[in-house]
Amino acid sequence: MTFNAKLLQTAQKNQSLVCLGLDPDPLLMPKMGVFEFNRAVIDATSDLVCAYKPNLAFYEALGIDGLVALQKTVEHIAGKVPVIGDAKRGDIGNTAKAYARALFDVFGFDAATVNPYMGYDAVEPFLTHKNKAVFILCRTSNPGAADFQDLACSSAHGPHRLYQVVAEKAQEWNRENNIGLVAGATYPEDLQQVRQICPHMTLLIPGIGAQGGDLDLAVRYGADATGKGAIFASSRQILYASPGSDFDRAAREATDKMRRQINSILSNRPAG
Amino acid sequence: MTFNAKLLQTAQKNQSLVCLGLDPDPLLMPKMGVFEFNRAVIDATSDLVCAYKPNLAFYEALGIDGLVALQKTVEHIAGKVPVIGDAKRGDIGNTAKAYARALFDVFGFDAATVNPYMGYDAVEPFLTHKNKAVFILCRTSNPGAADFQDLACSSAHGPHRLYQVVAEKAQEWNRENNIGLVAGATYPEDLQQVRQICPHMTLLIPGIGAQGGDLDLAVRYGADATGKGAIFASSRQILYASPGSDFDRAAREATDKMRRQINSILSNRPAG
Repeated sequence: MTFNAKLLQTAQKNQSLVCLGLDPDPLLMPKMGVFEFNRAVIDATSDLVCAYKPNLAFYEALGIDGLVALQKTVEHIAGKVPVIGDAKRGDIGNTAKAYARALFDVFGFDAATVNPYMGYDAVEPFLTHKNKAVFILCRTSNPGAADFQDLACSSAHGPHRLYQVVAEKAQEWNRENNIGLVAGATYPEDLQQVRQICPHMTLLIPGIGAQGGDLDLAVRYGADATGKGAIFASSRQILYASPGSDFDRAAREATDKMRRQINSILSNRPAG
Repeated sequence: MTFNAKLLQTAQKNQSLVCLGLDPDPLLMPKMGVFEFNRAVIDATSDLVCAYKPNLAFYEALGIDGLVALQKTVEHIAGKVPVIGDAKRGDIGNTAKAYARALFDVFGFDAATVNPYMGYDAVEPFLTHKNKAVFILCRTSNPGAADFQDLACSSAHGPHRLYQVVAEKAQEWNRENNIGLVAGATYPEDLQQVRQICPHMTLLIPGIGAQGGDLDLAVRYGADATGKGAIFASSRQILYASPGSDFDRAAREATDKMRRQINSILSNRPAG
């Protein structure tokens, strides 16, 4: 089954477009192991999300133990919900092949985020895994995103900002329908632009919650014409909804709240 | 001691600007453990290089065992030669902080490669480690580099190609003198442009050897006015110089050959 089919199936079953970021931070978590924390969060939320998205940085920062916890986390999800490895990798072809192997075969992710700066041969080795998917960074949610992504560039389609050229290229490269884009909720007008360039592509939309992105605009501009095609990532706001031992119950409530908000915005939006 | 001071000291002691990429590939290596392979290569070359550069992809592709081998490799070098973690990371500020901790504190690298696409806040958490350094991807050595890095952009300094804007920004961000740039030998004219924009910055120059970059042009265009400020990376050509049990001796010979070639080009270049 392709990644998009698996994602759609889970989204329909759970009636959810929430992608839960599993970013364990020992300074914010209750005092317990990372895997045990993730397991409790997963068990409390797996019927309310469409995907999980562990960011590899938080595991690497904990050394080998962290990476073992990441492996156990993916194993615990056990294919029940698609897992996106938020790794933002990108390297020359020969090396990108090793990264694709690491993320898809070794860690067992269903999809991975990749950085477009190095161009097509940094992305291509991921695309040959046809039942996996990549989310290419396009318009990221952070303040520094503007430094380069907003530069006015001349492209084959006329003058465009860099992130728009990335979206156009991604569209061109998407022959196997296994490319998605990352477009942050913190820049809703840019998200709208990305959706116009790529009307049918799956968008991974971070920046809601701790980063301050507006959920209402993100859903209205991010979803495709059918009210699907976008998943909304949140991490800190859900994982650390309670600092106490009821963190898993609080995470469930925060996930469900976000899930219902998204569904309500979708059902109230003007017919496209 | 700062990274640049440590690099200069090692380069002078070993009379070498060779940066040896430690990229273990089980398909090309003799049948032995990754750490044992690296240890033999390091013991055979540590008096002939100015830096080592393990690319994390090759270790991640081997799972937890690969990452343990990477840790043991850095420990084995034991500060005798600076080690650049070729990780090409880049993420939003909060996450970039975790990556910097992973690369500098957990793995103990002296420097790391980072991807500029996400802008300043993806780089800044690395820069606060003042005795460490980052090499920002600027003009990479791969064929796909042109897809985005060559786009004509309008910047504060007038129209420039994207990689030139990145070089200008890096120059601006380099307040602590702990930023370098990656500029591939496979595009010598672009390397020359980068050197003009950043006359004093340390350049990490990959693409020599298996990727086909011309060493002569790379040295002439990459070195600064004093004949320093550039390090030349090679990996496959050295690591796999012999497929047999004499791989370490062959790696030593290939390293020494490249070292002498660079030194000879430098001593014959016209006085700047």
